Amino acid sequence: MKIIENIKELVTAIKRWQSNRKTIGFVPTMGALHEGHLSLIKAARKECERVVVSIFVNPMQFGPEEDFSQYPRDLKKDKRLLKLEKTNLLFIPKTEEIYPEDFNTKVIVDEKLTNTLCGINRPEHFAGVSTMVTKLLILVRPQVVYFGQKDYQQVLVIRRIIKDLNLGCKLEMLPTSRETDGLAKSSRNTYLSSEERQAAANIYKALKLAESMLQVGERNPKEVIEAVRKTLRVESSIEIEYIATKNAETLEDLNVLAGKVLVALAVKLGKARLIDNIIVEVPSGSV
Amino acid sequence: MKIIENIKELVTAIKRWQSNRKTIGFVPTMGALHEGHLSLIKAARKECERVVVSIFVNPMQFGPEEDFSQYPRDLKKDKRLLKLEKTNLLFIPKTEEIYPEDFNTKVIVDEKLTNTLCGINRPEHFAGVSTMVTKLLILVRPQVVYFGQKDYQQVLVIRRIIKDLNLGCKLEMLPTSRETDGLAKSSRNTYLSSEERQAAANIYKALKLAESMLQVGERNPKEVIEAVRKTLRVESSIEIEYIATKNAETLEDLNVLAGKVLVALAVKLGKARLIDNIIVEVPSGSV
Repeated sequence: MKIIENIKELVTAIKRWQSNRKTIGFVPTMGALHEGHLSLIKAARKECERVVVSIFVNPMQFGPEEDFSQYPRDLKKDKRLLKLEKTNLLFIPKTEEIYPEDFNTKVIVDEKLTNTLCGINRPEHFAGVSTMVTKLLILVRPQVVYFGQKDYQQVLVIRRIIKDLNLGCKLEMLPTSRETDGLAKSSRNTYLSSEERQAAANIYKALKLAESMLQVGERNPKEVIEAVRKTLRVESSIEIEYIATKNAETLEDLNVLAGKVLVALAVKLGKARLIDNIIVEVPSGSV
Repeated sequence: MKIIENIKELVTAIKRWQSNRKTIGFVPTMGALHEGHLSLIKAARKECERVVVSIFVNPMQFGPEEDFSQYPRDLKKDKRLLKLEKTNLLFIPKTEEIYPEDFNTKVIVDEKLTNTLCGINRPEHFAGVSTMVTKLLILVRPQVVYFGQKDYQQVLVIRRIIKDLNLGCKLEMLPTSRETDGLAKSSRNTYLSSEERQAAANIYKALKLAESMLQVGERNPKEVIEAVRKTLRVESSIEIEYIATKNAETLEDLNVLAGKVLVALAVKLGKARLIDNIIVEVPSGSV
């Protein structure tokens, strides 16, 4: 596995692969790798001739009150895992390599996709994500870039940018990896105390309840949201940031739950802010 | 000369050149080509193996009250000129090819560069320019992209984006092409009546006066701006939008004119909004 820290060397490595017509699969991460990341890397390994992984805890996507400095970092373990997955290239830039002092550009997506769900409480988050990912996609020029469904809003934003800026790669979204009790794998789960970790199982339970309600014919968003809320409230340590049902393609609100429905939520649990979602195909007619 | 109207064919043509390691020089234009454009194309022809020119009157960079629909278009003449200059590829996309209905991304540069000079009265202009040019640079992937000094603020904005988004090309700025009386060549000069055309000669006269003042030791921005204003005011048909002296690298205001000084202005003259500028190297010490 080649480890590269600066952009110039990265460009040289990518150019060499491109002139040899190697297909490139790319998995951008913030490190502290878990099974969710590894499932993306395995998919890239299977589908592409070269696998590039980046590890960069992107300061631009954290708010001033957020956990940038506490975000878990374990580069030694990450490297070991990446070697096991036969990653060809690991890009681990320093902050000043990505954002030199005079850096002054932003890639932004219209607020229909970004000023809702996580964007409401994290106003600069998606500008940070999309600027960073655009830079990486321009540098790595992959055929396929991989993201997990857990960050579903991020997937929509980046899909939008890839199309709008003609970045010429395919975005492949893979299912959220979960613990045996359903909790979505996340680097931030390490923030949880053992009590909080137990309480966290209610998040997926609540989403599964929403799914069941949709499957048996509930079409009223308020009923679904209220049921999710009640399930979460069983655990007093869970503080709800939002629970929402949306058109999964456009993130528009739905008066009647039909079509491809996203049920998404964010909660605070101790020091962790956790997000999760499910997508349910709801037939448009009656049950 | 290959003429391409859609992105898919453009990508194919560029990929072929890239795998044959041809260097690409790119001149993005809005058409209605004049000697200014041709000087850029000649430079590209001299320095690169393949020359790509785009013609696209970009609606996103025009304000609602501006001249998008009146902007001069003469594709037949443009094609003839481009063939004479041995252009290899002309890209003339339709609006819906560049901005499909669901288009929703913007590339923006911090307001230090964009909320000054032309950006004050054209608040969305540079977002339109930078989004469009980013798309074109991602598609064409040139080694060198060429712009004229007349649009100096645009040059700074695009240089910023190329660096910040790692677009991997060099921006070459060429001197403003001028008529014999000094008027900067511009597609918008066709809007001028013959009286207005005569009055327009005062714009460059005023800039040359500023240059002379700097050369003989004037260091007070107010004095220089006032002298330019007086020169322009000789022609009552000239309506001044702004006259400014700036640090030519950062566009910051200067209390004392020193270093690389930009003297820039925008005026309205009949139906035309005209811009021009000069850059003067002023020694930092006394004269």
